[in-house]
Formats: sequence, C-alpha cells, structure tokens
Amino acid sequence: MTAAAGARRLFSTMSKKLLFGKWVVPVEPKDAVFVDHCVVVENDVISEVMPAAEARAKHSGVPEADRFEGGEHHVLLPGFVNCHTHSAMTLLRGIADDLPLMPWLTEHVWPAEGKFVSPEFVADGTRVAIVEMLKGGTTTFNDMYFFPDEIAKAADESGMRAVVGLICIGFPSAYCGSPDADMTSNVKSYLAKGVDIKDNLISKMPLVEAIVAPHAPYTCGRDGLQHCKDECDRLGLGLHVHLCETSGEVKDWKAANEDETPIGCMDKLGLVRKGLVAVHMTNVEGAEMDRLAAEAVSVVHCPESNMKLASGSCQVATLLSKGVNVAIGTDGCASNNDLDMYSEMRTAALLGKHVSAESTAVPAAQAIRMATLGGATALGLDQKIGSLEAGKSADIQAVSMGGIESAPLYDVLSHLAYCTGRHQVSDVWVAGRRIVEGRKVTTLDEEDLRRRALEWGAKIQ
Amino acid sequence: MTAAAGARRLFSTMSKKLLFGKWVVPVEPKDAVFVDHCVVVENDVISEVMPAAEARAKHSGVPEADRFEGGEHHVLLPGFVNCHTHSAMTLLRGIADDLPLMPWLTEHVWPAEGKFVSPEFVADGTRVAIVEMLKGGTTTFNDMYFFPDEIAKAADESGMRAVVGLICIGFPSAYCGSPDADMTSNVKSYLAKGVDIKDNLISKMPLVEAIVAPHAPYTCGRDGLQHCKDECDRLGLGLHVHLCETSGEVKDWKAANEDETPIGCMDKLGLVRKGLVAVHMTNVEGAEMDRLAAEAVSVVHCPESNMKLASGSCQVATLLSKGVNVAIGTDGCASNNDLDMYSEMRTAALLGKHVSAESTAVPAAQAIRMATLGGATALGLDQKIGSLEAGKSADIQAVSMGGIESAPLYDVLSHLAYCTGRHQVSDVWVAGRRIVEGRKVTTLDEEDLRRRALEWGAKIQ
Repeated sequence: MTAAAGARRLFSTMSKKLLFGKWVVPVEPKDAVFVDHCVVVENDVISEVMPAAEARAKHSGVPEADRFEGGEHHVLLPGFVNCHTHSAMTLLRGIADDLPLMPWLTEHVWPAEGKFVSPEFVADGTRVAIVEMLKGGTTTFNDMYFFPDEIAKAADESGMRAVVGLICIGFPSAYCGSPDADMTSNVKSYLAKGVDIKDNLISKMPLVEAIVAPHAPYTCGRDGLQHCKDECDRLGLGLHVHLCETSGEVKDWKAANEDETPIGCMDKLGLVRKGLVAVHMTNVEGAEMDRLAAEAVSVVHCPESNMKLASGSCQVATLLSKGVNVAIGTDGCASNNDLDMYSEMRTAALLGKHVSAESTAVPAAQAIRMATLGGATALGLDQKIGSLEAGKSADIQAVSMGGIESAPLYDVLSHLAYCTGRHQVSDVWVAGRRIVEGRKVTTLDEEDLRRRALEWGAKIQ
Repeated sequence: MTAAAGARRLFSTMSKKLLFGKWVVPVEPKDAVFVDHCVVVENDVISEVMPAAEARAKHSGVPEADRFEGGEHHVLLPGFVNCHTHSAMTLLRGIADDLPLMPWLTEHVWPAEGKFVSPEFVADGTRVAIVEMLKGGTTTFNDMYFFPDEIAKAADESGMRAVVGLICIGFPSAYCGSPDADMTSNVKSYLAKGVDIKDNLISKMPLVEAIVAPHAPYTCGRDGLQHCKDECDRLGLGLHVHLCETSGEVKDWKAANEDETPIGCMDKLGLVRKGLVAVHMTNVEGAEMDRLAAEAVSVVHCPESNMKLASGSCQVATLLSKGVNVAIGTDGCASNNDLDMYSEMRTAALLGKHVSAESTAVPAAQAIRMATLGGATALGLDQKIGSLEAGKSADIQAVSMGGIESAPLYDVLSHLAYCTGRHQVSDVWVAGRRIVEGRKVTTLDEEDLRRRALEWGAKIQ
C-alpha cells in the first residue's frame, strides 16, 4: 500500500459527518423532538445526537463538505422501513384498477406476470422502485417477489438496505417450480433456490439480509409452511407471509380445514412466534390478537392496498392496545399505486381512527414509530435501525418544512404525519452514505431507469 | 386613448393561447382521454379542444410566449374545485390533533379562534391557503369563515375563483353577533352583514360569488335556517352548510326535535333542493338519500377530515348509485391538515371502496369527476367550469407525469387518481390567466406569506 492510499484509507475509516436539523425526531425516546440538534455520524454509525452548538464546538474540525446544514427548515428522522412490498411490480403500476380482487389478479396481474416476469424485469423494476422509495425517505424495504437474486443485486448496487424474501409458492413461475410438481414440492424447490441465493449472494452483501417468504397459507399449503418453518429454524431466519388479507381467504381456509383459521394453522405449526412478519391481517379474531401479542409477532399494515382492494379493516388500534408491534408497508405498485411511505403513514393514522371510531387512535407519533422502529422491530433489525440513537446505523432522512404548505408549524410530529409530502425529502443516508443528495439519487441513473420503465410499459400494454 | 393603447387593448381583447398536453382529460365527455391534444384559449374562455397537429396548423400565428408546451409529459385537466374549506384556518394547521371532537373544538380550536381571528388573520390565512391550493391544482374554492369580505379580497387579488360563504352562526364572534342576542337574531345579524358584503364588494369581483352559509342546524337553529332560506329565495343564492357530520349531532337533534333528523328539518323548511351544498353527510338514512337525489342536492365529501375526526362514513358509493352529485372538499387545515385535492381525491377513491366493501366503487374517473365537475355542479357553476369544453372558462391545471414515480403509464386516469402528488402540478390558469407558472404563484408573494404564517404561529402557540 502506498502512503497516499494508506492515508486515504485511514481518513476513510475515520470519516465523520455532522447532520444538523432544526428538529431531530429520534423516535426513541418515544415522542421526543430535539430542536436545533446535530446527528454525529462516524463511518456508518450514529455516534452522538447532541445540541447543534455543542456539536459545532466539539467537532469544529469536520470540513464543510461533510456537514449537512439543515438547521433552518429541516427535520432529521430515521429512514422509513417499507415493511411489505413487491418492488418490481412498479412496472405494473396502474395496469388495472377498480376491479374485484379475483378478476384483477387472474385476468390482469397474473397474466402480465406470467408473460413478462424475468430476471431483467425484476432487475429494472426493483431499481425503479428503489429510486422512488429512496426519494421518499425510505431506507429499508422488505421485499417478496420472484428472482430474489435480482432484488438483492439491485439493493446492493443502490446502497439501500433490504430484507429480501426467499419467495416460496406452490405454483410454477419463470423463476422456479414445475407444473407437474405438487404444492409442497414446489415450495421446497423455491426455498432451496432461495437458500442457495442467500448463501452465495446475499450473505456477501453488507446491507442485504434474507427472510423466508412463503406467499400465503392458501398458496403454499400446510406442508409447505411446515417446510418453511423447518428451514427458518435451521437457518435462524424470520418468516414474511401474506396472512388473513380478506374474509374470503379466511372463510375458505376454515371450510377446508375443520374450522381452523389460517392463524390457527400457523400457530399449530409453531410459526406464531417472534420473527413472524404477518402482512395485512384484516380478519383476525380477538383471541388471536392476544396470541400475536404474547408471542411477539409483528403485523404489517398496508392501509392503502387494503382500501383499494376493499380487503377489510386491520384493527390497528386494538392490536396496538394489546401490545402487538405494527409496521407499515405500501404493498406493490399494482395495488396502491405508489411506494410513498408518507402517504401510507398518514393513511394509517387516518384509517386507524376511522376503523376504531376514535379520533385519539394512532396519533401522529405512533404512526411515525410504526413507519420506522415498528418496521425495524418486525424485521429483527431494531438494534440496528429504526431510531436515531448512538450506536445505530446512520439510516437517516432529511425533510424540509420550508414550504408554505408546512407553515405555520406548531408540532413537527403532527406535520410529519398529517401534512408532509414525500417531495419534501431532500437528502437520505443509508449506513452513513448519502445516497440522495438534493433530491437526486447518487447511485442509480434515474433518467435511464425511467426510460426503461416506459419501455416495459410499451411492451406490456 | 392613444393609438398604442388602442392597439394594446385590441391585442388584449384578442388574446389567444395554445396549451398543449400529451394527454388532455376533459372530464366531459365522461372518461375521455385525448392524446396529443391542444386546449385553445381565447381571452378567458376555451374555444377549442383539438389534436395538437391541427392546432399548430390552424393557429400558427400564436407566438411562443402564448404557448404552453406540455406535449411530452403533461396532462391538462380542469382545475380542482375544493368544495368545502375554511381557508384562513391554515394559520391553525396542526394546532391540535388526535383528540376527541369536543375537546379538540372547545379547548383548542375555538379558544384560538376567539383570541386571534380578526380581519388580518383572515386576510393572511386565506392568502396562505390560496397559494397552497393553487400550487396543488385547485382553481376554485368554496369557503366558509368569518370576515367573508377579507376572503373575497384575497381571492380577487390572487386571481383565483371563489365562492364565498356569507357565514351565519347563532353565536357572537369578532366578526359579528352579540352575546346578548338569541341564536336567530345573531344569524340575522350575520346574514345582513354578509349580504352587505355581497352587494358592495363581491358583486364587483368577476371571479368571486356569494353563497349563504349557515354553519349547521345545531348552531343556527330552525328559525335561523328559515331566515337563511328566505334570503336565498330573495337573492337567488345557494346554501352551504355542515350537515350530519357525526352520529352525535344527528342523535342530539332528534332527541330535541321529536325524532326529526337534521335533513328532515331542512326538508320541511324547503331547503332540500337544488342549490343545497350539504357537507360531510356521514349519517344519512336511505330514504333521505333518495330525497337528495330527487331534489338535486349536492353532497360534499371530506374524507380526510371525517377519518381524522372519526366522524363516520359518508356512503359515497350508495349516493352515487342513487344519482346524487358528490363533490370533494378538504375541510379546513385544523382537521386535515392540508388543502391537497390530489390526496383528498385519492382518499375519496380508496375510502369509497373501503366503506362499501366493493373494490369497483368510486373508480378513478369518477373520483376525478367529483373533484372537478362535481364541485362545479354543487356550486351552480357547471355551465362555466369543471370540464375542458369549448365555451367554458379556461380554469386549467397542467400536471407532469415526467418523474419516475409516474412510470410506466398505462392509464392516465389511474395515475391522476392513484399515484399523482400535488407537487407534480406545474402551471395553473384561471379564466385564461396563468397564475401558477413553473410552480410559482405569480399574483401573491409566497415567501412573504410564509413568513407571516410563521409569525402568526409564534403568536398563537
């Protein structure tokens, strides 16, 4: 190593950044808002959260280029955790709307997927999604889609944090499975392929992790779920699954399984436990909620998708009151039709009040917590991300309150939850690296990806 | 008149503009989308909507400065009609949230209003609201607040179209009324003052109209409403009122009025008729909906306010199926907390599905229609605004689909309803005058208004 390279490396290992915010919303401690504060970042980690004046004195040697001066208008808060999405479905954004669930799936979404989903589709679609998510303040996404190797590569290239689902489903796709195999065999093939991707690709990526991701009980079957559980145990992984999305799904499962609910089935298999990331959960019985709370299951609420598909009501206020951890997800772009966590957080706060008929339900600070630390907890990453605390990874978003739509400002938590648009996000850091700078993603070519998305649209139309 | 002035005047009276859109969404004909089209504007009126190539040939003499070249990425559609708001309450944006309705009103909103509402408050707050609304594609607002003279002056100065409520309420305020007078006398005083403002101020403003605006049955009383009705008849005006916002309101009215509902009372008074702009309507019986349909009453749906205050569910899908005209309003900033009609339209489409448990309810084109022509119809302005048709006023917004969050694009109606943010609005014309240009409001000083809003916030806090 030359001396210059050594010095560069030394400098690099000592990289320090000062991020100043008019407000810092750390999420932990609960409901806290620090005014005129600084988040000090050393390498990829937050080392201190302190008053701005103290930081300027203590760290006066940090050069201007390593300072973010958001002291007049900006809020610094943890990056959002989009806890359920199918990123590559950006390429099917708005392909069909306003239809009943089954015709929407069987006549539009599944045929388009059957014809077009490929490694290239997932590579492009996931990158389009990553740009959209990063520019909206999301720093981590929990994905479930075909070709998880392509999802992982896209996340790794972008510098975004991701938990990639090792997708399993009882049916064949371009990615895996055979029309001649039964449901359980297909699930096993998918998961074997996923584990291989985890071992040979994901395990080498610093910001990407794997999670076992059976699509749903009704598409994987009891034996498929049992196999997923065994593999979770063997590999020490969590499990990400669509669960109780509609009343029809629950009714059908009960009819075919001697009145056992899908959650009852999961419970018998030993899957109702910490590490279960249960998505949608619009049809859950009261006693089941108690089980979820007792076993530290996380629920992922996707309010806009549930409303758009008229799937039913996730009882968020009740779940929270029972102590269940609730995270927020956008779901995929075919049922939303965006990946906007500001909008999703706001809808969660509003829908929580509507469904419980209590205007005090899901208050602003709670909604922000669900969109950050709630997601981190669901994914087992709560020691690493989800709040701005010393020792945690520097996954941070800066959002401007400098526009007239943010004035006046009585309570920054209220503004974040009830009147902030994702276009107000200016800068985003993941593991200390600034990958959105003045609304430009620095690691991917947005214009090229937009062009590719339009080309896919022209093909698929 | 000098020759030059004469020529200028002649030129001015012949002003022609060509607005090109990649897509033109005229709203009428229903569900239409015109690709590569031009809206030709002469003075304040749309003269033609025609293919872009034809317009370029036919109107080749129109100088570049009078062309809007949105042919690559832009949609042109009618400006939104925000059919219910209390504009000046921007200054109370987020002052209190997540509270039960009555403590929210009696301990926070009303005390702040009692202490601070003044002509200056309304002048500043309304202008802040106008900037926010214009930049979000809204070209007309239907307002109800104290000091309607100040609301009218703000609208007139800005060049925005407004229907200003001649507010009546049974209680005194800084604007009108006496603590010693009874409810009916106060209503009469308010309305006399309002009619004076209409005659001496509003009648001279080309883009401002008046509407009689009793706050609600429970705050004006039966005799107060009777007086409002008489004045509507005398002056040929419509009536804008909060109606059936909560189940408690309906229950209390019935208990005090021999089981008559608030709508029943309005009906007996002869107010259930065309021209009634009934806001909220979350607690309406089936037979009452039939009456609304038969008498051409318009309902204004404020989904985000209803959700935030847990007021209940407006049965939008049922109302629409019965043929009731439904418009959309943001309500005031204290219960929303913004004036974003894109968000409100989207929430209306999603909540309509959720409430009716039908994913086919309130489809995209319907939501867009409610936010434009629905509002125009409610206000009796459907011959003038609400769609892009020859002969109508040129109240138009241009919104960009050029960002990655709009790619790919299969259906522009779907995108407008389900994945467009207000920050995508680039330009806005009202009566042919471009008052938002590249996201800058040309008629008001945004930065000065933002500063004033912050100053009000500091005082009120």
